[in-house]
Amino acid sequence: MSSVTADRKKVSEKDIGRTGPGTLAGRYLRSFWQPVLHAADLRAGRTRLLRVMSEDFALYRGQDGAVRLTQPRCPHRGMLLTAGTIEADGLRCFYHGWKFDGGGQCVEQPAEPKPFCEKISLRTYPTQERFGLIFAYLGEGEPPAFPRYPMFEDDGIFTHTDSYVRPANFFNNLENVQDKSHLAYTHAHVTGTWNNYADGPRIVCEETSWGLKSSGIRPSGKRQVSYFGMPNIVHGRGPKNDPEVDYREFVGWWVPIDDERHTQFTVVIVRGKTKEEFERYRERQREMGKHRDLDREAVMHAVLAGDVGIDEVDQSRVHLLFLQDDVAQAGCGLIHERPPEHLGRSDVGVIAVRKMWARELRAFANNQPLTEWRYDPAFQPVAEF
Amino acid sequence: MSSVTADRKKVSEKDIGRTGPGTLAGRYLRSFWQPVLHAADLRAGRTRLLRVMSEDFALYRGQDGAVRLTQPRCPHRGMLLTAGTIEADGLRCFYHGWKFDGGGQCVEQPAEPKPFCEKISLRTYPTQERFGLIFAYLGEGEPPAFPRYPMFEDDGIFTHTDSYVRPANFFNNLENVQDKSHLAYTHAHVTGTWNNYADGPRIVCEETSWGLKSSGIRPSGKRQVSYFGMPNIVHGRGPKNDPEVDYREFVGWWVPIDDERHTQFTVVIVRGKTKEEFERYRERQREMGKHRDLDREAVMHAVLAGDVGIDEVDQSRVHLLFLQDDVAQAGCGLIHERPPEHLGRSDVGVIAVRKMWARELRAFANNQPLTEWRYDPAFQPVAEF
Amino acid sequence: MSSVTADRKKVSEKDIGRTGPGTLAGRYLRSFWQPVLHAADLRAGRTRLLRVMSEDFALYRGQDGAVRLTQPRCPHRGMLLTAGTIEADGLRCFYHGWKFDGGGQCVEQPAEPKPFCEKISLRTYPTQERFGLIFAYLGEGEPPAFPRYPMFEDDGIFTHTDSYVRPANFFNNLENVQDKSHLAYTHAHVTGTWNNYADGPRIVCEETSWGLKSSGIRPSGKRQVSYFGMPNIVHGRGPKNDPEVDYREFVGWWVPIDDERHTQFTVVIVRGKTKEEFERYRERQREMGKHRDLDREAVMHAVLAGDVGIDEVDQSRVHLLFLQDDVAQAGCGLIHERPPEHLGRSDVGVIAVRKMWARELRAFANNQPLTEWRYDPAFQPVAEF
Repeated sequence: MSSVTADRKKVSEKDIGRTGPGTLAGRYLRSFWQPVLHAADLRAGRTRLLRVMSEDFALYRGQDGAVRLTQPRCPHRGMLLTAGTIEADGLRCFYHGWKFDGGGQCVEQPAEPKPFCEKISLRTYPTQERFGLIFAYLGEGEPPAFPRYPMFEDDGIFTHTDSYVRPANFFNNLENVQDKSHLAYTHAHVTGTWNNYADGPRIVCEETSWGLKSSGIRPSGKRQVSYFGMPNIVHGRGPKNDPEVDYREFVGWWVPIDDERHTQFTVVIVRGKTKEEFERYRERQREMGKHRDLDREAVMHAVLAGDVGIDEVDQSRVHLLFLQDDVAQAGCGLIHERPPEHLGRSDVGVIAVRKMWARELRAFANNQPLTEWRYDPAFQPVAEF
Repeated sequence: MSSVTADRKKVSEKDIGRTGPGTLAGRYLRSFWQPVLHAADLRAGRTRLLRVMSEDFALYRGQDGAVRLTQPRCPHRGMLLTAGTIEADGLRCFYHGWKFDGGGQCVEQPAEPKPFCEKISLRTYPTQERFGLIFAYLGEGEPPAFPRYPMFEDDGIFTHTDSYVRPANFFNNLENVQDKSHLAYTHAHVTGTWNNYADGPRIVCEETSWGLKSSGIRPSGKRQVSYFGMPNIVHGRGPKNDPEVDYREFVGWWVPIDDERHTQFTVVIVRGKTKEEFERYRERQREMGKHRDLDREAVMHAVLAGDVGIDEVDQSRVHLLFLQDDVAQAGCGLIHERPPEHLGRSDVGVIAVRKMWARELRAFANNQPLTEWRYDPAFQPVAEF
Repeated sequence: MSSVTADRKKVSEKDIGRTGPGTLAGRYLRSFWQPVLHAADLRAGRTRLLRVMSEDFALYRGQDGAVRLTQPRCPHRGMLLTAGTIEADGLRCFYHGWKFDGGGQCVEQPAEPKPFCEKISLRTYPTQERFGLIFAYLGEGEPPAFPRYPMFEDDGIFTHTDSYVRPANFFNNLENVQDKSHLAYTHAHVTGTWNNYADGPRIVCEETSWGLKSSGIRPSGKRQVSYFGMPNIVHGRGPKNDPEVDYREFVGWWVPIDDERHTQFTVVIVRGKTKEEFERYRERQREMGKHRDLDREAVMHAVLAGDVGIDEVDQSRVHLLFLQDDVAQAGCGLIHERPPEHLGRSDVGVIAVRKMWARELRAFANNQPLTEWRYDPAFQPVAEF
């Protein structure tokens, strides 16, 4: 056996869904910039205890408006820093007033003589505010350059954030987007069912410079095309949900809270509207949101238990498309708990994304060169329903 | 050591309460038909996710009215089938529309060419609807013949279902029914206490063709006799709870949800009444039920904690006899957690039922012949209070 | 290696916070009298299921007014005795009426002939009612003499109980009281912050005949002095919280419920008042308590998560000083989960109490002589804010 072979670490699909500290997939995901909060959800002078990939972090926005992300606990006695006070240029611990500047250096310990504080600092994590989201780099070493997202650089667009939490492993969502064959059943209210193969799509999945292009092309000519960006991003178009906007175009990042829940951080793009038209669209969306007063997670559990048929749910009181995906993705359980699967030709997208992830994880585990993913402005997601 | 001895599997009382998949007691219980739901709780076209003996199942009633029980998850991607749609003659998965006929065979995969579906099928479980209950056979191989319950074949009887869930191991209930000495304390409101042995019963437990006959015969002549049917059935009579019906005669099956909770599936028998009299009795029972608005499990926990004396509970707002048994059976904890017991002569029923179960489990574990249990129409439960 | 060395059991700080049955710290704490309930919370004829140091106990007060503490379950079938009935001179089990006298001896088994009951008894634990609290001795062997608390023997004092439960290990509270440097930050509303060392106290911790004397002496001359009594007691004075009483003097015992929660049993001492003045003070305190209607534990979690700033909490609706300590003590997590600490000169009290506990635990583990702690009437806690 050559030493090269001996050193090679095995990677299986079992590794994919587990993202806690020290896990292979967790270290891989942490090597990319990840969104962790809506920027608007953190006012100046406020903190937030975050859980990302089964790990806790303290996030705060200084009085100077800048966002900082640090280890969650004070190095003194382990106190959660999120109970602390934000000062102009740093954070002061609630318990003994140790003060840390924006770079994490301890600069005051009211009850201790110097130079003790000089030896104390927080682990901090780089952050950037982009597209209404706070991104962080949670990995080791220097962060990579923040990637370009050319779709946000187009002229005359408006964007807004619109995220959700789903009680399922993040990878269930990642697979779901490649899976164009679920549309006709999970989302039959949008696409219509396929009526025994009459209008079933040809399902195609191709590797791109960014990840995957997944298409469903129906005999009638209608197409549904989405672009997946490694390791956990989608650029897609969903069905029309406003009288004056043709489709819901969005970029989504699936970020694990832990291995059983994830957030889809979503930025919606609205094209070809004036400022006033966009504001009226936003007002209509907010109005619709007010009526969606059902607890979607509770409804989801009721549907999975058979207590309520999904057809019986009042569609004006819940985002039906999201509820359908909640049911499908949580209904499949965790990847490690699932009984043996039986994949077919229509699962090419699911198979492709697992292979791509396993390939990259294998390279990552063995310190081999990783693919450098790059979005191509030619990508055009399509939503023809 | 002879090979016979070497092959013999040891069975202890520790094996009795554990009924999850693969456990000895679980496999033994699964070798009998067990009730799993009130038939009225499953309308045509509806599903139900069931948990029985720590295992999940999908139950549905086709548009044809027939009940089918299957494995809980779709063989494709592991989706819970209970979110699916019921069609005339089968179930269609919510995620990708795979359709399974009443026998569990996959007959359609809208996004896949044939003959893939021919290789796919669900594990299904035989069901029967009897006495207002849905029974299932959850064991291996062919089901045994559905046993005769001659008490339901008598002329001129009416029956109705009336089940409950109790937060205790099913075996606690099974022991409780053999235990005629608890009546005077747990149910003193019905029997009166024994006043220092003044009217204590002679307690007798005899093996029968069905299981056990447990009797308490008091010096005053009053008798309380119940019949236990292996492995988890009782035919008994409880105290009068209606002005025009002399006693509450019932057959109960104790079915584990998991090792900490069970359902008593109950069918009540009313004798010697006209159809109109029975309907009026039912109406009185429903009226009484409306007033029983306390959460019995919450009250039970309060009684066990000492927060509320059972005498202080408003008896019009709870089924007192059931609450008393809730307290007694949950109060004893799980069989495996209990400190060493000190059994006496009055525990002959408890001892007998444990011995009978251990004997059968031993035979079952060693592939030896099992007793064939048979109800005898001569059995006459007695409730003289 | 000498046999003496070989026999010596190692004790580390990891042993301190764990007090379940059989643990070293748990056995040590159990070798002292501990309060377990407010005496007023147990009326004659009532029971209470207690959890103390991760262990369950049945407490009851006989019709004779005397308090008894026993093992939680009946020796017969394991039934929780707290569902039982209290008779003049003992407790009768709810399940089969076994009766135990005040000494725990079984004296009646209604369904059993004598002399079976003579062989059955409960493990009982000595109790004493003092200062409005029920104390118990939960250890092995004969209890030590109940210690003198001379502060309760002073002339002309009034006392009342005023305890709370905190979701933190008991030792976090024990450390917190020695820690005079947290006052200016955690309780800045009372002490004012130290404004960059301008009025920081000299922090001193000295061993006493009872445990430790912890002092913070500020340049302005203001002092805060508390006395800690081994193993888990404090005699202190808190800030004024009544217009006619100068400070809140109290004795507190920190008793683990389990390793994640504890009760501070508190007896407040009011000096120099007439009976009428004391009653009016009590009335004012009760009135203030009525307005404190927020769930302090829920507010604490919100503060730790960053959802609410502690400054935003309505101070009339919560005991602010207690909330601040809730946040600080629960915020530090469990001693075993904490990342490495960085202790300084101001942590002399924390260091001292850990050393004292470790020293005593080491002696206890090795059957060496233990310090005999003794309160000295000369102790004078000081609260100058």
